[in-house]
Amino acid sequence: MMMLQFSEPDGLNDSVNLQVEHDGVPVPGKLYTLPARCGIAVELKQGQRISITNPSGSQVCDFWAFTASNPHEFMSMEHVHTDLGKIIPKVGDRLVTTRRRAILTLEEDTSPGIHDTLIAACDHTRYQSLGCTEYHDNCTDNLKMAMQVLGKTIPCVPAPFNLWMNVPVDRNGEVAFAPPVSKPGDVMTFRAELDCVVAMSACPQDVTPVNGEDKDTGPLNFEILSEA
Amino acid sequence: MMMLQFSEPDGLNDSVNLQVEHDGVPVPGKLYTLPARCGIAVELKQGQRISITNPSGSQVCDFWAFTASNPHEFMSMEHVHTDLGKIIPKVGDRLVTTRRRAILTLEEDTSPGIHDTLIAACDHTRYQSLGCTEYHDNCTDNLKMAMQVLGKTIPCVPAPFNLWMNVPVDRNGEVAFAPPVSKPGDVMTFRAELDCVVAMSACPQDVTPVNGEDKDTGPLNFEILSEA
Repeated sequence: MMMLQFSEPDGLNDSVNLQVEHDGVPVPGKLYTLPARCGIAVELKQGQRISITNPSGSQVCDFWAFTASNPHEFMSMEHVHTDLGKIIPKVGDRLVTTRRRAILTLEEDTSPGIHDTLIAACDHTRYQSLGCTEYHDNCTDNLKMAMQVLGKTIPCVPAPFNLWMNVPVDRNGEVAFAPPVSKPGDVMTFRAELDCVVAMSACPQDVTPVNGEDKDTGPLNFEILSEA
Repeated sequence: MMMLQFSEPDGLNDSVNLQVEHDGVPVPGKLYTLPARCGIAVELKQGQRISITNPSGSQVCDFWAFTASNPHEFMSMEHVHTDLGKIIPKVGDRLVTTRRRAILTLEEDTSPGIHDTLIAACDHTRYQSLGCTEYHDNCTDNLKMAMQVLGKTIPCVPAPFNLWMNVPVDRNGEVAFAPPVSKPGDVMTFRAELDCVVAMSACPQDVTPVNGEDKDTGPLNFEILSEA
C-alpha cells in the first residue's frame, strides 16, 4: 500500500484560526465573514446550499470542493471542462469530481458570469516570481490551512474554480489577467449534491489587477442555507 | 503528519508489463514502442531529451511529468497557463511544475502545434458515461499502472498535456472534441530541465473522434536522447 505525506503550507496567516463554529459545522442562515487574504473550509451536507457574496464586487474567491467520503475525489476543473463542454460554468450547470460525479450545482449567479477555471491558485512561488521577497499570503496555503483546521487531508491542491476572476482567452489561446466585471454585492449560490467540504480563499493577489485595478483585497461573506 | 493512500486503478491492461528496460532506465538512442491503448513511464535525467513520434498522425498521447525529488511537485497545466500566458505551449516554451519550476522544455514540434491542456485524462467513469458497460482501457489507469511499474508514488492524477489532441475553444468558451490535425510521423521533443519521470499513455479513446475520424487507436514510438 503506497502512502504519501501531505504537503505543508509555505507559511501561515490567520486562516489557522478560522472556523465557522467550534466543530466546523455551519449554522444555517448565519452570515459569516471570511477576512481579506484568508481561507476557510466548511462542511456541507447534501442538499445544503452555500451563498458567497462579493462585497466590493472585485474580490476573487478561489473555490474548491472535496467529497466527504474519499480524499481522492474532489471537484476538478479539467473534468468540468469535459462534462460541460465549456470552460466557464453557468447557472444550472453541475460541477463534477475526479470521478465525474456532480458534487455541486451552480444555482445562482448575479454577476455577468465571468469566472476562471484555467489558472492555478496563487502560491509562494508565484509571489516570488512577481518580485516579493518576503512571505505573501496566498490561496494555496490558505486552502492547506483551512483543511488542516478541519482535520481534513487532501492529496494535492486541485485547480480552483476562481469565482469572479476575469481571465479572457483570445482566439490564439492567449490569456490575460483582467479586473473582475462583477459588481458590489454579487452573489453565487451552490447546492451540495454530495456531502462535502467546500473551501474558499479571499484571493490576496495585490500585485496584478486580478482583484481590481486598485489591487485592493477585501473580505467575502457567506451563508449556508438548509435544504429547502 | 497526515498520510494518504494512493488511489488504485479501476482495472488493468498490459501496461502492468511495460518497462523500457529491467530497471526502468532507458537506453539512449534506442527506439521504443508504446503499444496501442497502453501507458509507460520513463526516468529522465536533467539534460536528456525524449522524442515522441505519432506513427498514424492521429494518435493522441496523454503526457505527464513528475519530479524525481518530490511526489508533490509535478508538471501542472494550470500553472503552465499562468506561466506562459497561453493555453497551448509552443516550441521554446518551458513547462512548469506545481512549484513553478521548469521541468521540461518543448524543443521540437513538427505538427501544426495543436495540443490540449484543458481536458482531463479519460478514465473508467468517462467510458461508462459514454455507454461502455465493461472495463475500457483508459489513460488514468494507464498512468497509475505505469507509475506502479516503476515503484513511484503519485498523490493524484494531474491534468495531462494531451499531445496532438485537438480541443478548439470558441469565443463563448465552448470546447469541442475534434480529430487531430497532426500528420503521420509527427514528432515532439522535450528536454528534461530536472531529473524526472515522464509518463505517456497512447489514448484508447475510440468512442469520440479524439484519435481521428475513424476512431482507431494505435501505438506511439519514443526515443531518449542523451545530453548534447
